[in-house]
Amino acid sequence: MFMETIRWVDSYLELIDQTKLPGEVVYLKCTKVEDVIDAIKWLKVRGAPAIGVAAGYGVVLGIKDFNEKDLYEEFKMELDRIVVMLARTRPTAINLFRTLKRMEGILEGHKNKEIGEMKKYLLEEAKAIHEEDRLMCEKIGKHGSILIKDGDTILTHCNAGWLATSGNGTALSIIYTAVQQGKHVKCFVDETRPLLQGARLTAWELKNAGIDVTLICDSMAATVMKAGKINLIIVGADRIAQNGDTANKIGTYGLAVLAYVHKIPFYVAAPTSTIDFLCETGKEIPVEERNPKEITSGFDRQIAPENINVYNPAFDITPNIYISAIITEHGIAYPSYTKNLRRFIVESRDTNRQKIFTTETQSTQRIM
Amino acid sequence: MFMETIRWVDSYLELIDQTKLPGEVVYLKCTKVEDVIDAIKWLKVRGAPAIGVAAGYGVVLGIKDFNEKDLYEEFKMELDRIVVMLARTRPTAINLFRTLKRMEGILEGHKNKEIGEMKKYLLEEAKAIHEEDRLMCEKIGKHGSILIKDGDTILTHCNAGWLATSGNGTALSIIYTAVQQGKHVKCFVDETRPLLQGARLTAWELKNAGIDVTLICDSMAATVMKAGKINLIIVGADRIAQNGDTANKIGTYGLAVLAYVHKIPFYVAAPTSTIDFLCETGKEIPVEERNPKEITSGFDRQIAPENINVYNPAFDITPNIYISAIITEHGIAYPSYTKNLRRFIVESRDTNRQKIFTTETQSTQRIM
Repeated sequence: MFMETIRWVDSYLELIDQTKLPGEVVYLKCTKVEDVIDAIKWLKVRGAPAIGVAAGYGVVLGIKDFNEKDLYEEFKMELDRIVVMLARTRPTAINLFRTLKRMEGILEGHKNKEIGEMKKYLLEEAKAIHEEDRLMCEKIGKHGSILIKDGDTILTHCNAGWLATSGNGTALSIIYTAVQQGKHVKCFVDETRPLLQGARLTAWELKNAGIDVTLICDSMAATVMKAGKINLIIVGADRIAQNGDTANKIGTYGLAVLAYVHKIPFYVAAPTSTIDFLCETGKEIPVEERNPKEITSGFDRQIAPENINVYNPAFDITPNIYISAIITEHGIAYPSYTKNLRRFIVESRDTNRQKIFTTETQSTQRIM
Repeated sequence: MFMETIRWVDSYLELIDQTKLPGEVVYLKCTKVEDVIDAIKWLKVRGAPAIGVAAGYGVVLGIKDFNEKDLYEEFKMELDRIVVMLARTRPTAINLFRTLKRMEGILEGHKNKEIGEMKKYLLEEAKAIHEEDRLMCEKIGKHGSILIKDGDTILTHCNAGWLATSGNGTALSIIYTAVQQGKHVKCFVDETRPLLQGARLTAWELKNAGIDVTLICDSMAATVMKAGKINLIIVGADRIAQNGDTANKIGTYGLAVLAYVHKIPFYVAAPTSTIDFLCETGKEIPVEERNPKEITSGFDRQIAPENINVYNPAFDITPNIYISAIITEHGIAYPSYTKNLRRFIVESRDTNRQKIFTTETQSTQRIM
């Protein structure tokens, strides 16, 4: 049912080129860090968890050809340069920065090692991030599935499925898991303008999985809610502030407000790696503004007047008061999020400390 | 600044083909009723008032070649057939049906006349509908402009401008009038999926008029409201129930709810001919569902999986509680609409009764 969104093949990275979906399933071969940068910038790979995984391998590709006889300082300078390049691709998804921090941490933790060995550790770390992401999806699915009742109809926005992760998704993992448990569910999917991740990716994923899915325009969600067709809404997240305010694909905030007015539970599904404890509230989350052409000529055709002013934020911030619960790999957090999200981290840090003591290649910076 | 959306040239009708905008301004020549039917069905002419005007000329074109020596009964049968064909084009905009009723009324009122003369009366009635529509726009603009303050930023959805009417629009007439009064206004325009009337038509209209306009996707409106950028929202209407519930382009309902939550005034601008006193509430307004292809491949490109289920209502119903006021050619109606909208009609009927006594070609059915 699921394909590998991202895979490491011997010495290079392969990504499903998501800009070609649903027309063609094509793996894009990335042999240089520049290929990965290009893939992230142009949304060939997208979804906060998948970006995080791709960036790890991006670092590996970036230092691949570094002369193994050079000094640590030079290697570190080169790694810094690569990290900066990758960090500049997209500003909102925190997973990207968390990965880069972890890769830097590997270097810090192995100052006395040979460069050849350090490259090995970096690849191991990238693979660890990849595998953790896969497991995280499974756990989110399991935890979240208890919120879905047999017969429910679920609305989702953008794509938080297997295409956005290394596993079976975040929001969609919950749906897939509920279906595997024998529950009958139907889905409505917002097309998600401007880049149509809902129409192109989520509708495609759910249909391929044999789930009853209906595509709507973003502007139709309110009417579908009013008609009583939606039992719950689940979306993913690109960054969550410590108080639960959530950055996600543009349109999420409006949906959450409409859900509130229509008394429909509104859930966010995301790994704890998406939580940024340095952001007290959503106000501190940087929101990427993208090229106007995504709106004015996003379909290979000019659909608006030449030189029209455009406002094209890629994300919006949903205040915590509109979020019924946040589903993570450690369980479901209900308000107050400031208290309950932190508890997950403290608990998982205790678990992970043990891991750190047993696995040399893991960084103490894993849990930021 | 404004062009003629619809014009009668000697013996045929010309319409700006709105499916070609903003790329090309092309007048479509309609010489047969079938051309008008096609134009309405495929949104070459759209906007409730413009459809009403086009339909009047459609009737004229339909009976144009009718043998003048035939009997009244045969002429009436032919007119009935044409009316049914036109009535089947689109179900929601009431103006279409109102025009057809008026054209039928002409026949009823002139049973004893020659067929040649009756054709003349029908053309006069079509022209009267056209001219009334033009005047209506001016009056709506004048009444509504008092709601706009210097420096306001206005959000609108779909197109309720000169392209939707025979004059300078309904919602946009208010904006144009405020600008003519020397007020500085800015506009945000929802692109209005699936057919992008906001991006293609409204953004083009406002830009051509020299107004500061910013295009957004429908899903961005909530964020723009939350950021405090919007002072008021004005939209048009396709049909208004007697209690003020309003059918308008899909997405309007969601906008109205979001406006309510963000404490932004939400206005509907429409002629009283859009009010359907036979509909007690919005529940009785029929909502057109259109071809799924408008969503899945509306940009000459497949943007969703093959054979995906799609829900594509062209309109939604906004309950009166979310509407701050309804701006008509007779003035501004505030709640309670059931009382206040009816008052406009009673007053205008009194005025129109006098007209009926002085102008033979006008029908008593003008004011339904």
